[in-house]
Amino acid sequence: MRATIMYKAGDVRVENVPDAKLVEPTDAVIRITRACICGSDLWPYKELEAVPGGRPMGHEAIGVVETVGTDVNRIKRGDLVVMPFAYSDGTCAFCHEGLQTACSHGGFFGVGAVGGAQAEAVRIPLADGTLYKLPVREDDALMPSLLTLSDVMGTGHHAAVTAHVSRGKKVAVIGDGAVGLCGVIAAKRLGAEQIIILGRHPARIALARDFGATDVVPERGEAAVEHVRKLAGGTGVHSILECVGSEDSMRTSILIARPGAAIGRVGVPHYEGTPASQQAFYGNISVGGGPAPVRAYIETLLPDILEGRIHPGLVFDQTIGLDQVPAGYRAMNERQALKVMIRP
Amino acid sequence: MRATIMYKAGDVRVENVPDAKLVEPTDAVIRITRACICGSDLWPYKELEAVPGGRPMGHEAIGVVETVGTDVNRIKRGDLVVMPFAYSDGTCAFCHEGLQTACSHGGFFGVGAVGGAQAEAVRIPLADGTLYKLPVREDDALMPSLLTLSDVMGTGHHAAVTAHVSRGKKVAVIGDGAVGLCGVIAAKRLGAEQIIILGRHPARIALARDFGATDVVPERGEAAVEHVRKLAGGTGVHSILECVGSEDSMRTSILIARPGAAIGRVGVPHYEGTPASQQAFYGNISVGGGPAPVRAYIETLLPDILEGRIHPGLVFDQTIGLDQVPAGYRAMNERQALKVMIRP
Repeated sequence: MRATIMYKAGDVRVENVPDAKLVEPTDAVIRITRACICGSDLWPYKELEAVPGGRPMGHEAIGVVETVGTDVNRIKRGDLVVMPFAYSDGTCAFCHEGLQTACSHGGFFGVGAVGGAQAEAVRIPLADGTLYKLPVREDDALMPSLLTLSDVMGTGHHAAVTAHVSRGKKVAVIGDGAVGLCGVIAAKRLGAEQIIILGRHPARIALARDFGATDVVPERGEAAVEHVRKLAGGTGVHSILECVGSEDSMRTSILIARPGAAIGRVGVPHYEGTPASQQAFYGNISVGGGPAPVRAYIETLLPDILEGRIHPGLVFDQTIGLDQVPAGYRAMNERQALKVMIRP
Repeated sequence: MRATIMYKAGDVRVENVPDAKLVEPTDAVIRITRACICGSDLWPYKELEAVPGGRPMGHEAIGVVETVGTDVNRIKRGDLVVMPFAYSDGTCAFCHEGLQTACSHGGFFGVGAVGGAQAEAVRIPLADGTLYKLPVREDDALMPSLLTLSDVMGTGHHAAVTAHVSRGKKVAVIGDGAVGLCGVIAAKRLGAEQIIILGRHPARIALARDFGATDVVPERGEAAVEHVRKLAGGTGVHSILECVGSEDSMRTSILIARPGAAIGRVGVPHYEGTPASQQAFYGNISVGGGPAPVRAYIETLLPDILEGRIHPGLVFDQTIGLDQVPAGYRAMNERQALKVMIRP
């Protein structure tokens, strides 16, 4: 089968690899009908040192179940399913608590012996716990929005939840990538009164406004802090969705926080120590978040997609075939594409 | 009047200073009947660079109201009151939200033109918002426990609240000082199932056990992490009360946290970046806390003291007169005293 392999920064290829197949009796194999490239794939695309044999890429997909192992009971051949970016058993204490990204037996796609989803097919470990059966057909027009349940919509929602967004709150969203934009959707969905997006890319900002952003702050650093504080009435915002992961964006998050505010960070941190720790302390500002348990959020968010109340699929502005994946990485890396959908 | 002034690290003196008097119409002056030395006073005692004119010390007291300004209505001459370590107006948005340490017009004792409480008397800004009238007489036997409402009991409670302690949780308390010990009381009060104290001072550990600690971890660093994880059943604890403020104690807090755990930090951070930021991220561990709004907590905690359900006053193991305050600092700094009460 064809699959995407990254060999080092800037070197991503679509190649013939052995077909995905069952390994454990709890596995399934799905034929992928939709996949995509994630903003987080751009970190290795910028930084990865040479990996012998390469790294399989892709952790977001919708697909049709082709085969299931002998211990798979809930998921059936022929089911159309969404695959969260982490697999999980669905039975451990963490899964029961809704923190599937800490599953005692779970893990991530594209790591170790588990393949990636930018491919024709992928093996799904712990299929009964991991996969969520969709109540639509594989050619449904909602497919782009449903695909975001794999990662970006659930991740934006996690940022909002861990930033304690609720009715009437003033919210800032740092980052105008797909996760930040889904964070805007999530903040509006949870009742935020003011949603300030920090970003400057015209098309993305326009989409953010469509999704519910009330204010835009194009500045960075000190100027951004001043602008957000002014917009929020002087004392800062209640909730910050940190969707970038850089030290600067975290510092900005803390400096725009109202005393007692919460920061939900979902951008993988590219810093060792969380900056401005004393400012956070003196303001009683909490810093939470992490890898989103998107599996838990599918049930929460799915009805809003099916019934047309939210449209996160609008983050996809380019659709390509599997062989165009390297060009898709380039387009996203150069910010010519916001998020690229793949139809293998 | 006599008051405590610190000139530089190790140089603390009791001196004659001008009498405390009303400055603003919202002020009161209280004659102090009980004060104490705080663990946080030991930071300047170790580190303070020479301050011209010195710094007035003390931010915890009970006293009798001697005079009130013309705009003070709720508090009356003769009231016995507890003074939280921060003053606050009681009317701003933050005070209404119960975050008096972020009061729009508030501040801290011993800073700027506001005196300290290790003295015969002190001026109380914003007296109506700041002071809490006690329903007992000034010689009541509960005085030591009531004095802890100024700071350490409320601060331990804040650590527990921001660490999301609730019924059935596994909790670790880092630090066996007065705040850590009050954190044990708070964790037990909120229903924790397991309370592991990290500390090694025999008398303090004995008191921690009296207060409800179920386990003791005397090790530090890696060995402490391993021991706590073993005691908690392998995956770490749900809640960590970080009552020290050093980089090492914060790192330990993160490394003993169960995925999804919350850390409540109340030790003033003596580090620039919060360490182990990536471990915290991957574990969805939140770091919260800050200066405790002890004013808000007095109403919560007072009935438990008055009705004898908690006894935080047991943290005082030495009582001195005002003139012995320099010796009190030495005793606490050398860990010969846990917490020193002052009867001016």
